[in-house]
Amino acid sequence: MFDQKLAKRAADNLAAVREKRPLIHNITNYVVMNYTANALLACGASPVMAHAEEEVEEMVSLAGALVINIGTLSAPWIESMIKAVKRANQLKVPVILDPVGAGATSLRTKTSRRLVEEVSATVIRGNASEVLSLAEKGSGTKGVESIHTVEEATDAAVSLARKLKGTPAITGKVDLITDGERTRMVFNGHEMMSRVTGTGCTATAMIGAFLAVDPDPVEATTTALAYFGLAGEKAAAHSSAPGSFQIALLDALYTIDGEQLEEGARIEL
Amino acid sequence: MFDQKLAKRAADNLAAVREKRPLIHNITNYVVMNYTANALLACGASPVMAHAEEEVEEMVSLAGALVINIGTLSAPWIESMIKAVKRANQLKVPVILDPVGAGATSLRTKTSRRLVEEVSATVIRGNASEVLSLAEKGSGTKGVESIHTVEEATDAAVSLARKLKGTPAITGKVDLITDGERTRMVFNGHEMMSRVTGTGCTATAMIGAFLAVDPDPVEATTTALAYFGLAGEKAAAHSSAPGSFQIALLDALYTIDGEQLEEGARIEL
Amino acid sequence: MFDQKLAKRAADNLAAVREKRPLIHNITNYVVMNYTANALLACGASPVMAHAEEEVEEMVSLAGALVINIGTLSAPWIESMIKAVKRANQLKVPVILDPVGAGATSLRTKTSRRLVEEVSATVIRGNASEVLSLAEKGSGTKGVESIHTVEEATDAAVSLARKLKGTPAITGKVDLITDGERTRMVFNGHEMMSRVTGTGCTATAMIGAFLAVDPDPVEATTTALAYFGLAGEKAAAHSSAPGSFQIALLDALYTIDGEQLEEGARIEL
Repeated sequence: MFDQKLAKRAADNLAAVREKRPLIHNITNYVVMNYTANALLACGASPVMAHAEEEVEEMVSLAGALVINIGTLSAPWIESMIKAVKRANQLKVPVILDPVGAGATSLRTKTSRRLVEEVSATVIRGNASEVLSLAEKGSGTKGVESIHTVEEATDAAVSLARKLKGTPAITGKVDLITDGERTRMVFNGHEMMSRVTGTGCTATAMIGAFLAVDPDPVEATTTALAYFGLAGEKAAAHSSAPGSFQIALLDALYTIDGEQLEEGARIEL
Repeated sequence: MFDQKLAKRAADNLAAVREKRPLIHNITNYVVMNYTANALLACGASPVMAHAEEEVEEMVSLAGALVINIGTLSAPWIESMIKAVKRANQLKVPVILDPVGAGATSLRTKTSRRLVEEVSATVIRGNASEVLSLAEKGSGTKGVESIHTVEEATDAAVSLARKLKGTPAITGKVDLITDGERTRMVFNGHEMMSRVTGTGCTATAMIGAFLAVDPDPVEATTTALAYFGLAGEKAAAHSSAPGSFQIALLDALYTIDGEQLEEGARIEL
Repeated sequence: MFDQKLAKRAADNLAAVREKRPLIHNITNYVVMNYTANALLACGASPVMAHAEEEVEEMVSLAGALVINIGTLSAPWIESMIKAVKRANQLKVPVILDPVGAGATSLRTKTSRRLVEEVSATVIRGNASEVLSLAEKGSGTKGVESIHTVEEATDAAVSLARKLKGTPAITGKVDLITDGERTRMVFNGHEMMSRVTGTGCTATAMIGAFLAVDPDPVEATTTALAYFGLAGEKAAAHSSAPGSFQIALLDALYTIDGEQLEEGARIEL
């Protein structure tokens, strides 16, 4: 049976986002900027994109959460990201990191590690290889190539959470969220989501919106992923090809109500 | 009663855009580049995006209008914007500035002021706080925080227009356009437009297209905003969620004909 | 009569893309990044966008093809493009160049020429003026302004192909592909495609996907353009306005099957 209290919390968080319309500051990749902004608007939040070194500190001071996504990284953006996260840490603005492609190139792996070591991310969302690439070799955390079962992934995530004092969220067929003490799994979602670019990045942005209204990183992330996954399920009921699916997904983020979310959220402790 | 002569002018301007297909040079933000280009194509214009310092002067010399949008600003882009506007001023190519987020961070406020003081923008379109942030404190123009009524906004816009010898256009539930002498209001539009990212930026681009065929900044801007607002109304008749709405809006820009625009434009002097 | 063997090859190539899901490395323009990524996913490939000088060599070593598109060029991107193509040449990864706007500004013309002279592009796709601007004046290749007939365009393309030892593909109402020895024409496509931004860029990306599974540049390009054009035809059957058309086009890329492609491809030798 799925957890009813967290399903209710998902609905409450969604209502809070829609009421408070928190400003979400995104330093994200070029590919998904438009879709991310539209998804944040659809869920009820207020997106802003700003990456210039000269203004990121000022902008993050206005924000309810900071989303950092390294999908189209370059040197000047890295410095802006570090600067923005440092300021967010000072101001206790929650930070969510999406380490797109970490593990694939050394620039991405190194940058992601800087973002969790020099400064601090509240939540880190990615697929298994991205998230687990943040654990340094020889750190006692298993590398992603040695992970074959959900149990092993869970162990690695728990170990990473403790090391970083953060909340890794590994998304995939099942989403796994842990702060090293509490672990949740989210069973919402649809395979068509992998046929649209930036659905992972959008999941990250949704977590940003929920973090702006729910101070518990584990529960904010869990409920955001249930909401986003349920929107994917609803979109798939309207569309079976990726062009119309991506549009239906934005529509679903907007039309899902609290009752549907409470009923549809499939979260396990 | 709405002005019939301007409604007719809106239809004439739309026909001229569709016939002449003016090249619109955009130096705009990453979030809206794709949507802006598609909206310009849908209305009949020919968009080009080019921001490199090495080519902006050459590109603007080919253009019917220059659109400057500071939504994702950074230092190298600022210099390109100044350079492009300077050249446009020399060539008498009309320039439309969208000061996204002016008033929110000092980088944006300062850059916007440079763009109207060092060089010259024909039209400045934004929401009230963006546009009115261009008026320097102590300049006799009221700050946006002291504006509470439409009358006060009108007074501030008129004062700004005279100071800048330009045409501010404050868009919102009602759009207000003035050159300090003539003032128009546009009542077209739909609230769903605020749920799609970059609709303001797209309004700006539409003004660019109309400026390329109508040399009067006040009337070009007014008729472009009536056209864009009417497209929003038509889109809302087809869709009630933001994903499908943004698509329907592009469709409406393409399908609205002169007769519909003449009939649907709601402009007051 | 259309060529049946190439129609069959188109279907085989599409099946191979869907089975192998090749990684396509794109260094492309801001306007089309999202749409290109979605189109690559829809056809079955795996897109990645990466432009930082620090990582392009590492990324291209993982890729089945490299797509270079100069639509929103700037100095740091040019150096990354050169670096990526040089590495691709060493690794024998096929490279497809989209010289957007070559011939319109000197930055674009010069950069395109560097990309075919300092390093080597396997395929070059653009409209006639873009592709033929790559031929230097006085090189014996006719300039685009002197081309008025399909025969003259074919002669110019054949001459360019021989000079560059590459495969130019001039797309338009009819697509022309040649390596200087073999010449093909593709009659698929729909005029609505010119009303959506980046359809040319997307055609280029599709060629990238097909090049990753078919080592013959002429046949990979020809079959990719037939597939993409057929998707445009199918999309036009569902939509007559550009917003919904662009979505239907993504859907068509996903839903077209081998049988439909074999039947619908209109290729002439």
